[in-house]
Amino acid sequence: MSVQNIHDLSERLAAFARARDWEQFHSPKNLAMALAGETGELLEHFQWLSEAQSSSLDAEKKEAVALELADILIYLLRLGERLDVDILDAAYRKMALNESRYPADKVRGDARRAEEYD
Amino acid sequence: MSVQNIHDLSERLAAFARARDWEQFHSPKNLAMALAGETGELLEHFQWLSEAQSSSLDAEKKEAVALELADILIYLLRLGERLDVDILDAAYRKMALNESRYPADKVRGDARRAEEYD
Amino acid sequence: MSVQNIHDLSERLAAFARARDWEQFHSPKNLAMALAGETGELLEHFQWLSEAQSSSLDAEKKEAVALELADILIYLLRLGERLDVDILDAAYRKMALNESRYPADKVRGDARRAEEYD
Amino acid sequence: MSVQNIHDLSERLAAFARARDWEQFHSPKNLAMALAGETGELLEHFQWLSEAQSSSLDAEKKEAVALELADILIYLLRLGERLDVDILDAAYRKMALNESRYPADKVRGDARRAEEYD
Repeated sequence: MSVQNIHDLSERLAAFARARDWEQFHSPKNLAMALAGETGELLEHFQWLSEAQSSSLDAEKKEAVALELADILIYLLRLGERLDVDILDAAYRKMALNESRYPADKVRGDARRAEEYD
Repeated sequence: MSVQNIHDLSERLAAFARARDWEQFHSPKNLAMALAGETGELLEHFQWLSEAQSSSLDAEKKEAVALELADILIYLLRLGERLDVDILDAAYRKMALNESRYPADKVRGDARRAEEYD
Repeated sequence: MSVQNIHDLSERLAAFARARDWEQFHSPKNLAMALAGETGELLEHFQWLSEAQSSSLDAEKKEAVALELADILIYLLRLGERLDVDILDAAYRKMALNESRYPADKVRGDARRAEEYD
Repeated sequence: MSVQNIHDLSERLAAFARARDWEQFHSPKNLAMALAGETGELLEHFQWLSEAQSSSLDAEKKEAVALELADILIYLLRLGERLDVDILDAAYRKMALNESRYPADKVRGDARRAEEYD
């Protein structure tokens, strides 16, 4: 088995879809909806938990959540592949942007959104 | 600069949060909400487009979408870090599960959900 | 039975929650998550359908979707009650705002978002 | 002005869309995405707040949240109109279903989902 990395995974997911003739359903629009559907399932795991409870899941719940996170990653990678976007590279670029938008000295301990700073 | 991969990115994101004393806000519950908020922004890019239009974005729109996908990956990795879940490994496990749930011969060209099959 | 209207329904929903000692879980934060979870379920019904198919659901699917819409309305009304917001009144105000932001003569046949107009 | 109620509002929203030739964009699929996009905006207001903070919004934030709830109701009613579903009636039916699924004596103070009860 090849090394696990998101480029390898993305290729396997594309092959999985092609083998099932599912690429016809995998428009970016549809994949964005599927991603959001999985995100909704993630929320359902946490909606009635306190923040503290959400940090100390039991093993069964943790595995269920792990598989939801997996589903989100899967659709995210499918979207990147269909749009020809390198999401990992975009995330590094976005992180650099966040570094400049939220200087540590200015925002320490404050979670307000960027547009709320003057 | 180190090689780009999601484990490196995840560590950088954790360091970014620690430097801003933002880990207090990063409970799994809150991060799941933030992930869903970004997913909502993604949907807004596609909601009035046809499926065909969603497959042929112009360069400006494509970059805007890329940064939304980046935000989703960022929160997804933060969630994995806070929950001590290896999302990439979970995605490989989930893909193996999908291989057995959706045999290519049975589901070719059919997008119904697994529970709708007998 | 009293006349069906959203104020009556909202009161019944509050009584339902009180009788189960569930108001402790019904913070606005949690209810927003529950609302989003139900919205995710709604998306799952439509994600692989074409727009045309989404307009001609069979009776079984239509009823399933109707109950998802019901769940969304239920959490929406719970949120309004907990926040002391009259959502119906807010919707009339928002519609008046939309009338002025999107003059029919200017936007006819064009679905771009308001901020994209000059 | 006529009495405020959701049937009147729904008719006004349909007229608003027709006057702008926007019904071409208002497939149920697209409206479900728009509803989910607005739900994402709602989450963003609450994601970094504690549950207690979410219950005591200041006036400015409360009005911003009220307008998000309004947007959600607007798209919900559009969906009901396009699908020919009476959402208010469906909500009463769903509430009756919830009454039988969650007897007060059995679930008092317990927020687990129905399928987790035996």
